[in-house]
Amino acid sequence: MNAWKEYQEQHKERFLNELLDLLRIPSVSARSEHKGDMIKCAEAVRDSLLAAGATGATIYETPGHPIVYGELITDPSKPTVLVYGHYDVQPPDPLELWHSGPFDPVIKDGKIFARGACDDKGQFYMHVKAMETMVQSGELPTNMKFLIEGEEEVGSPNLANFVKANKALLDADVILISDTAMISMDTPSIDIGVRGLSYIEVEVTGPNRDLHSGVYGGAVANPITILAQMIASLHDENNHITIPGFYDDVAEVTPEERQLMAEAPYDESEYMADLGVKSLWGEKGYTTNERTGIRPTLELNGIWGGYTGEGAKTVLPSKAFAKISCRLVPDQQSDKITKLLIDHLHKIAPDYISLKAELHHGGEPYMTPIDSDGYKAAARAIEETFGKKPIPVRGGGSIPISALFEKELGLKIVFMGFGLDSDNLHSPNEKYDLVNYYKGIETIPYFHKFFAEGI
Amino acid sequence: MNAWKEYQEQHKERFLNELLDLLRIPSVSARSEHKGDMIKCAEAVRDSLLAAGATGATIYETPGHPIVYGELITDPSKPTVLVYGHYDVQPPDPLELWHSGPFDPVIKDGKIFARGACDDKGQFYMHVKAMETMVQSGELPTNMKFLIEGEEEVGSPNLANFVKANKALLDADVILISDTAMISMDTPSIDIGVRGLSYIEVEVTGPNRDLHSGVYGGAVANPITILAQMIASLHDENNHITIPGFYDDVAEVTPEERQLMAEAPYDESEYMADLGVKSLWGEKGYTTNERTGIRPTLELNGIWGGYTGEGAKTVLPSKAFAKISCRLVPDQQSDKITKLLIDHLHKIAPDYISLKAELHHGGEPYMTPIDSDGYKAAARAIEETFGKKPIPVRGGGSIPISALFEKELGLKIVFMGFGLDSDNLHSPNEKYDLVNYYKGIETIPYFHKFFAEGI
Repeated sequence: MNAWKEYQEQHKERFLNELLDLLRIPSVSARSEHKGDMIKCAEAVRDSLLAAGATGATIYETPGHPIVYGELITDPSKPTVLVYGHYDVQPPDPLELWHSGPFDPVIKDGKIFARGACDDKGQFYMHVKAMETMVQSGELPTNMKFLIEGEEEVGSPNLANFVKANKALLDADVILISDTAMISMDTPSIDIGVRGLSYIEVEVTGPNRDLHSGVYGGAVANPITILAQMIASLHDENNHITIPGFYDDVAEVTPEERQLMAEAPYDESEYMADLGVKSLWGEKGYTTNERTGIRPTLELNGIWGGYTGEGAKTVLPSKAFAKISCRLVPDQQSDKITKLLIDHLHKIAPDYISLKAELHHGGEPYMTPIDSDGYKAAARAIEETFGKKPIPVRGGGSIPISALFEKELGLKIVFMGFGLDSDNLHSPNEKYDLVNYYKGIETIPYFHKFFAEGI
Repeated sequence: MNAWKEYQEQHKERFLNELLDLLRIPSVSARSEHKGDMIKCAEAVRDSLLAAGATGATIYETPGHPIVYGELITDPSKPTVLVYGHYDVQPPDPLELWHSGPFDPVIKDGKIFARGACDDKGQFYMHVKAMETMVQSGELPTNMKFLIEGEEEVGSPNLANFVKANKALLDADVILISDTAMISMDTPSIDIGVRGLSYIEVEVTGPNRDLHSGVYGGAVANPITILAQMIASLHDENNHITIPGFYDDVAEVTPEERQLMAEAPYDESEYMADLGVKSLWGEKGYTTNERTGIRPTLELNGIWGGYTGEGAKTVLPSKAFAKISCRLVPDQQSDKITKLLIDHLHKIAPDYISLKAELHHGGEPYMTPIDSDGYKAAARAIEETFGKKPIPVRGGGSIPISALFEKELGLKIVFMGFGLDSDNLHSPNEKYDLVNYYKGIETIPYFHKFFAEGI
């Protein structure tokens, strides 16, 4: 134990600088112009695994962005931990709101500012450095496998096929993922659930060309107005989602679990002050933690149509667009919800316009049993380094591939995340606190130790 | 008369080439990067006036884009016709829908394709060439003045002050404007009304930064959703506008006038086929011609917010925006309607979000009396060259400065437009038929002749 900590103290600066190098690669999976950066980033991940002591590391091509696989197998009798993470990042837009370049990482007030600092380069790289620590200290309680993909932020369209085709390669005893957050460094927590996702794009077409709003306005349906009316109708006055059947498969959460959730630290006025809002919005009958944890949601991620430039243009546009995503909870199924959503949009679309609605990507919700060996090892590892038992919480985000991992590989997943909700994931000025980065690297070896010991 | 026509036949090709040169200047008033093009275009207009025989032509600076004034005064005892037009054009977006460059005019199927081909370079330039025709043929029935501004498409923010400060310079007997359309070349018409305008921009702010839609979605108001709900509420189920007081000042149109309007040629299935729509939208209780002529409207000209790029981004955005404009009819007043609209938006804005709503520009509706000398001269000129009496119609568009002209200069306005509704004004592939351009140049001298003769 002391050997781990000692090694980490000696190599602290290099552990940081290596991460900064990785953050400098603009590996934006959603944008085709970054295809070359994706390859460059995959190569950097492979090289980092080899440098950290992996006995093998390979880049697997896919129809999309490459997958990096690496392993350190020292003793077949030891348990094997499969670490999953992703080297791709969200687009950095809107660029003008960043205080420094999204791919030009800076350290300020003890925090690393860069796109991907937390989600997920900073988090998966902790495992690479934890492996190096265990190797160099000669204390490696487990075998390790790494599956680091490049398409998590676009819904992992090629990972399922890879997993199905490589079950033996990925065979392990548990899957460990650091891609979620803790309540705070003072209140460590472990996500026991991630929500599923149905992400669609909608195109509303009115007239076959942009029109002069004076000559035609008032006589031809404006696709922006119609799209707005359709969007407005998706929530009722209690902010329930109005799609018929949407809630049918939502598993009831017991009053006891809701009671437990209510005991997690939450200060509403602090929450509102942090977001700069005067009041909170959400589904009637549920608390903020419930709204983001145990309830499904429907959010508008983007909208556009007509003239959006400087000044004024009196146009009645031909088209309007929206990106809409639903977060799903057990036992909702992504395919089913996507179909309900798209069918409902077609049903409410008036015949003034024509509608195209297509799936971007989806993923199933997933729950980790708190009595599983993986969960117990993570809880004990966190207690070891934080000095406090972590609280199990339901996270609001999605890791679309989770359910598939369990189904195909028969493994339970542990979400041992070291981020914070305030890390600006998917937003300008994404950050990751240095203390969280180092604490993660310190904690991970204990997971391996306790998991190998059978807790 | 024959002399005019003969001169025009001889110089047909040059009349076209000069217009094409003017169309090559990207004089987009809404975009600050075109400031230099605006100056270049003003200079080209001044030079064209001098070349066509103007006795003087000057560029007047304004706080925005320059105004071009020119005159041809030959005999103070003759009546004076003031021609108003504009050399600025709408932004060409969306560029990808143009079949040829918006500022790279091409002739195809007897039509000029370019931004401004009809609105308004093609139309005001007919008057320049008509002046040249009359000068060169030695038959000039009137004095002529030209007021060609560069800010019509952004609401003429500096023209009012110029008009107020230069009443003597602009003194005339009638104002003649070609910036409207005819029903068709077979059914010539004259617009007797233009609608007023209130154009605003709205900014809805939810959280103080873009958020992860999984971590915060469902618990914080999404500004796109809220904006959509606000927009949706602006029309009721009969597509009446719901802003209290909006219709208060709308002048009643007599059943007789509505009956007359109903006699104008209109083929609904042709109208729908041209626009590619399966059904028409509009205020209950009114026909298409009434909806675009005698009724006020509220249209969404643009909307944007969140992630609008390729692929998917699971963001709950901080802000969403919209551009909204109302077309106004007599006796609505732009200032009053703008205030009603903005006040109403503030009233319906929920406290989850904060709202900014600001005026872009406005203008009053205007009606030409059909018993005025100007109208009668235009009707007779059109009858002379088209062989048919034109039908008086109410146009849907706006020429924001019209009401101010009448108020400050005490002059009636005649809208003798030669465009067609199908000219794609403000849209990709704006065009102007060669036959309309030449027919306009042929008709205009007759207006001067009949107006000078006192009809």
